[in-house]
Amino acid sequence: MYKTNNTALKSWIEVRPGSDFPIQNIPFGIFQTDSIPHHVATIIGNQVIDLVALNDLGYLNDLNLDKTTLSQQYLNDFIAQGKAVTNAVRERLSDIFNIENKTLQENLDHRSQVLHDYDEVRMLLPVKVGDYTDFYSSREHATNVGTMFRDPENALLPNWLHLPVGYHGRASSIVVSGTPIRRPKGQQIPAGADQPIYGPCRLLDFELEMGFVIGKATNLGDSVSTDAAEDHIFGMCLFNDWSARDIQKWEYVPLGPFLGKSFASSISPWIVTLEALDPFRIPGPVQDPEVLPYLKYSGNKNYNINLEVMIQPEEGESKTVCRSNFQYMYWNMCQQLAHHTVNGCNINVGDMCASGTISGKSPDSYGSMLEISWKGTKPVPMPDGTERKFILDGDTVIMEGFAEKDGVRIGFGGVTGKILPAT
Amino acid sequence: MYKTNNTALKSWIEVRPGSDFPIQNIPFGIFQTDSIPHHVATIIGNQVIDLVALNDLGYLNDLNLDKTTLSQQYLNDFIAQGKAVTNAVRERLSDIFNIENKTLQENLDHRSQVLHDYDEVRMLLPVKVGDYTDFYSSREHATNVGTMFRDPENALLPNWLHLPVGYHGRASSIVVSGTPIRRPKGQQIPAGADQPIYGPCRLLDFELEMGFVIGKATNLGDSVSTDAAEDHIFGMCLFNDWSARDIQKWEYVPLGPFLGKSFASSISPWIVTLEALDPFRIPGPVQDPEVLPYLKYSGNKNYNINLEVMIQPEEGESKTVCRSNFQYMYWNMCQQLAHHTVNGCNINVGDMCASGTISGKSPDSYGSMLEISWKGTKPVPMPDGTERKFILDGDTVIMEGFAEKDGVRIGFGGVTGKILPAT
Repeated sequence: MYKTNNTALKSWIEVRPGSDFPIQNIPFGIFQTDSIPHHVATIIGNQVIDLVALNDLGYLNDLNLDKTTLSQQYLNDFIAQGKAVTNAVRERLSDIFNIENKTLQENLDHRSQVLHDYDEVRMLLPVKVGDYTDFYSSREHATNVGTMFRDPENALLPNWLHLPVGYHGRASSIVVSGTPIRRPKGQQIPAGADQPIYGPCRLLDFELEMGFVIGKATNLGDSVSTDAAEDHIFGMCLFNDWSARDIQKWEYVPLGPFLGKSFASSISPWIVTLEALDPFRIPGPVQDPEVLPYLKYSGNKNYNINLEVMIQPEEGESKTVCRSNFQYMYWNMCQQLAHHTVNGCNINVGDMCASGTISGKSPDSYGSMLEISWKGTKPVPMPDGTERKFILDGDTVIMEGFAEKDGVRIGFGGVTGKILPAT
Repeated sequence: MYKTNNTALKSWIEVRPGSDFPIQNIPFGIFQTDSIPHHVATIIGNQVIDLVALNDLGYLNDLNLDKTTLSQQYLNDFIAQGKAVTNAVRERLSDIFNIENKTLQENLDHRSQVLHDYDEVRMLLPVKVGDYTDFYSSREHATNVGTMFRDPENALLPNWLHLPVGYHGRASSIVVSGTPIRRPKGQQIPAGADQPIYGPCRLLDFELEMGFVIGKATNLGDSVSTDAAEDHIFGMCLFNDWSARDIQKWEYVPLGPFLGKSFASSISPWIVTLEALDPFRIPGPVQDPEVLPYLKYSGNKNYNINLEVMIQPEEGESKTVCRSNFQYMYWNMCQQLAHHTVNGCNINVGDMCASGTISGKSPDSYGSMLEISWKGTKPVPMPDGTERKFILDGDTVIMEGFAEKDGVRIGFGGVTGKILPAT
């Protein structure tokens, strides 16, 4: 176990029940204020901790840390220093904010330079994403989609149980939580028509996913084994893979999703390290048929992370429409990365891989409105008396996620996005 | 017409017949020598022209040019200055190297600082590609693929004539001409089998494509009209979209190509500006059915660019296996960009869009071995007595392209890649 995971640790910063950010979490992000353009930060309770200020005051001395990486626009160069450095920073932070450590705790001048209330800063996109890959690794989700659009008896396509199906996504349109999302326009084919029409998407959906961030690059031609994969994964975030179902349906054969996805994807602002998630490892599902040798793995590679999706109408009460769990993944991150690189495809620090929609077995655990409303045939009643088949203008979609054990809750800080009407 | 296109212009640098680089071309690239890590360059004849040296000697004064962009690793920041700047640089270069201009011509000391023999420099990847999109815009290619794998009577899928089908590709594995390509490994399904196997790709192919480079960014939510599209396109290059047909076939349903493509794509080292290609505009095909309003365009948006593919065995004579032309594109670049952004997807400087395989009507104009050998049923005889259905280890694939009119030939400098055996 990592020292930072010790459940007995307490911080001198108040951490209220239900907070995503106890002293055991120590995620990384980039924040901004009117006077700070972009600094690397972590968070405990609701206090954002400025690593530039900590460093300027001498609290990060004697770590093999390139200080210039703390004031860049993205975490990439900070992450690229490697886990030896970033884990040493996490240990130092764990020590500085330990309730038994009085140094910063009793220095009010220093505290005022280092700490910011979370609601007084703006969180920025934490990483510059070079390439983004979206997998399709929840068996329940793939089965639901196959059942709806193909044959319930053969819902999974022949390749699905043999490899983690995935595709390249659009990196430029990945935005941080809180960024408003404009309803996209595009071509759709009305039911029964043989000519497409052009207009605003009518079947706007979310997809509940989690993403992982590459922390160690490879060269073109190299492959990463399932054993080595965790060394290349810096951490995770929540990922909302916004989807325009009508645009997607018309365009996606034979080359896959394009404009139905590329208008936006939203991520949570904090990258939670794999090390913080270590206590929450659990076994994955039995994989039958047996996978090819390069996809075999040992150890517990799934994680028990509770996930929830809420829809908040413009002026109404929010409603939880999905409670799922990252443990439902059939293919784990190590298998995804081993598959991604088995052909020699190189990966770079900051690359993002998303899980695909994370659905469980029961309808209340489905991770998209497509599944929840079963193609619009089962509308969801909302507290204000309206109903939802898909997402309406003015709706905010809120995703939250946390792992919890032995009184410690490691969360992601949520990812939200409000839908603006098409222009 | 741009001043630089004047067919009467001659350079004091020798330009031999068949050269891709007369004074009317003036493409941009990045070169390296043992003492120069990376400088922006152009080329006339076989002389690489160092823009940093030109600037240091005062030849680029009084242009509204950020000189720091000339010594960066990629052209992105140079391009991002906008066409007003980059076209002014081209005009200045056209003036400096005009045979009637004696200034540099007669200064042997300056010439020795500015000029390098092409075979004494290394050309680097010219742009840092943020996102890469591959279209599928040759009707003949799509028809051939549909005929081979589906129904000859309905070879084109229903969406094909209504929108430029495309998908996101892998940006990290785009490499410059000359980079050796390692044969990829991955899952394949043997004919008649119901279980996949793992091993080196056996059906390795090229795809003859051209790429265009984004020169002007947009914000998320914005769209680019077909009229405005050329303002966002800096220039073009040759593009070999290497493809592992066996890997692709097993993986691509339903989310499109992934590992069958992501092991490598090769581009030519010079970005030829749209302005240099202006004299070679020609009308595109009549589009029937009529396209939706956002895809309509005016003016000549296709280009008459001759394309050729050769296979050079390790120790044998090369053979031309394809002569095609960029004018065969059904969807033009302006339509591709308008479609790409119609949903609000943002584009960045350096983003790459490729055409998809450029096939003509006759078998000798097909742009991939898949089509040339018709799935391996029509092997191509080679001069050394061997035959090719697909690409073998040790083969070098060479693509060349040029436009020619009124005695002026504007070329791309070729893109080559040699296949190394799988590890």
